[in-house]
Amino acid sequence: MSSIFSKIINGEIPCHKIAEDDKHLAFLDITPLAKGHTLVIPKIETDYVFDMADTDLADLIVFSKKVALLIKEAIPCKKVGVSIIGLEVPHAHIHLIPMNSISDMNFSGPKLQVSNDELAEISSLIRKS
Amino acid sequence: MSSIFSKIINGEIPCHKIAEDDKHLAFLDITPLAKGHTLVIPKIETDYVFDMADTDLADLIVFSKKVALLIKEAIPCKKVGVSIIGLEVPHAHIHLIPMNSISDMNFSGPKLQVSNDELAEISSLIRKS
Repeated sequence: MSSIFSKIINGEIPCHKIAEDDKHLAFLDITPLAKGHTLVIPKIETDYVFDMADTDLADLIVFSKKVALLIKEAIPCKKVGVSIIGLEVPHAHIHLIPMNSISDMNFSGPKLQVSNDELAEISSLIRKS
Repeated sequence: MSSIFSKIINGEIPCHKIAEDDKHLAFLDITPLAKGHTLVIPKIETDYVFDMADTDLADLIVFSKKVALLIKEAIPCKKVGVSIIGLEVPHAHIHLIPMNSISDMNFSGPKLQVSNDELAEISSLIRKS
């Protein structure tokens, strides 16, 4: 069975896209920890990020860097933080989170409530940066 | 002024080393979120991880993968999580954290109290794996 992320890649589930290339997709997390919180995924489904081949892992982090620099240009923040957890969806994904304090990276804390319209605005803002 | 991590690289400050190569050093975090919590740093000091050149960033994540696989072999956990925050020490560093639940990745939560002897034991266990 394909993961929810594979369904997003295939267009079965819509997303607020930030960037895409042959091997990767970046889109907004719909339950963000901060505005601009983005997920970066490899198009080929692998559960655990460290099971990826070295070259694929390297490509994934270099693509994530490009996305993080776009986010940082569009969203006021000190840095864009990185988190890879993967205890829920079995398809490797990198969280990129615009941070102003350490609490912006707390996945145990409450998520922001952001409307679909607002997510569309944020993704447009980042894509234009 | 060199960062605290550069002082560890230079041997001015001791550490519980996990792995090392020409460009990288991995050692135990002395205020861990979980037993086996490890920091991976590039030997060349750069504040923001996404200011690193693509090839250096790629090498850093591939080295981190090797370290994560060692940790996972030595420390019982579901996965080794990854976090890059960098709001405190201005020298890029990757946290590798053996996770059993999402709360193991909460940097706002309390740190474990682990003695120096216990850190030495943990680092020896991971190095042997």
